[in-house]
Amino acid sequence: MQIDVISSVNEARAEEFNGRTAIVIDVLRATSTIITALEQGCTGVMAVETVTGAKSMQRPGDVLGGERFCKKIPGFDYGNSPFEYKTGTIYGKSLILTTTNGTRAIQKASKASQVLAGAFLNAPACAQAALDLGRDIIILCSGTQDVFSLEDGLCAGCILDYVTKASSQECCIGDFGLAMLHAYRSVSDNVYAPIAQSSNGKRLNKIGFADDVAYCCQTGITNVVPVLRDGVLIRT
Amino acid sequence: MQIDVISSVNEARAEEFNGRTAIVIDVLRATSTIITALEQGCTGVMAVETVTGAKSMQRPGDVLGGERFCKKIPGFDYGNSPFEYKTGTIYGKSLILTTTNGTRAIQKASKASQVLAGAFLNAPACAQAALDLGRDIIILCSGTQDVFSLEDGLCAGCILDYVTKASSQECCIGDFGLAMLHAYRSVSDNVYAPIAQSSNGKRLNKIGFADDVAYCCQTGITNVVPVLRDGVLIRT
Repeated sequence: MQIDVISSVNEARAEEFNGRTAIVIDVLRATSTIITALEQGCTGVMAVETVTGAKSMQRPGDVLGGERFCKKIPGFDYGNSPFEYKTGTIYGKSLILTTTNGTRAIQKASKASQVLAGAFLNAPACAQAALDLGRDIIILCSGTQDVFSLEDGLCAGCILDYVTKASSQECCIGDFGLAMLHAYRSVSDNVYAPIAQSSNGKRLNKIGFADDVAYCCQTGITNVVPVLRDGVLIRT
Repeated sequence: MQIDVISSVNEARAEEFNGRTAIVIDVLRATSTIITALEQGCTGVMAVETVTGAKSMQRPGDVLGGERFCKKIPGFDYGNSPFEYKTGTIYGKSLILTTTNGTRAIQKASKASQVLAGAFLNAPACAQAALDLGRDIIILCSGTQDVFSLEDGLCAGCILDYVTKASSQECCIGDFGLAMLHAYRSVSDNVYAPIAQSSNGKRLNKIGFADDVAYCCQTGITNVVPVLRDGVLIRT
């Protein structure tokens, strides 16, 4: 089985997704938030690129979530902090989410046979779900403004670690994936420490979202693996 | 001190080099070969992009070296295997070298205040030379055909490891550099094993250059740090 990792949305070419299972990662915070929302009973998450697009797609009963520059968008129901989705209010609702990088990554990956959303929160379950689909795997790190983000790379390495340990087939991993696997293995006992020192980790700590960083660094606390179906991420 | 790592030549933007010390890495095999040639008494290495360019620049006494698709170019004196430069014949000669990726990387980095050539062979000395220059550092991994190569990333991590341990200043390392530092630290006791499994490692093993891979994975066997002066890499 071939497994490759793409370092940021900017690096992704559509043909790399053909016939593969894609795993999109945006640890801080889009995919962590999507996983949390679905785990809390949200019925589906539609990821859209623009604020205007999100508003125009809203039907009665839908709620709006998202961020720009790490902050909640004025007039929206929710921001992009996973804690906002843990208050019991998202249960049974459909969420339209717009975030800076994660949304673009999900849309970019939509040429894949299946698109899963991954984060540390669901890493073991996500690895197993991808293996169960039986195809080659491509992991897309969202990054930040077209630049690689450490937390997404380490999460890709974490998922690769679970995939290689659980796979019955030989895994052929591309060079960038191998680098992420080695990087993850050197910090696997405490991913929070390096991520707190990353560009996004420092930025979120600075603007008061230190708890989000700590929360998003927890590995395997849920089995929820969002899957893209007809443009909506749902819980399977 | 700010230290960043660029994943491949394709990712390099000229403005990132302004005012910095650049370290260009092409472990398999351009920078390993350049270091070896200078260590063996070669008077200077001029890295040029094309075979035609190399031939047109040759003056009496100059020797030609280089590869295309990992193999020696017909009519050239040397290929790109460091062992070819260890036979005593390069002493006192000037080398014009054309390789697929390393040459482009050196030219791309030429906007920097100083350009050094790094590899595992000279990693500790290269780190110290960059620190001694007192500027921010940018490390350019050559990669292969515009794609990241594991051995260059691990070598960047190795040099970063020496820089952070030897620096008297606080080092602010970008996310990609942090990933390479963590990756290197997980394999630092034996970089050969992962590099033999990398794309270039496997390719070179397959076509009979297994000894080159093992040779280029030796860390700190020389203090030679090539420096670019007026377009020529020389030993300082």
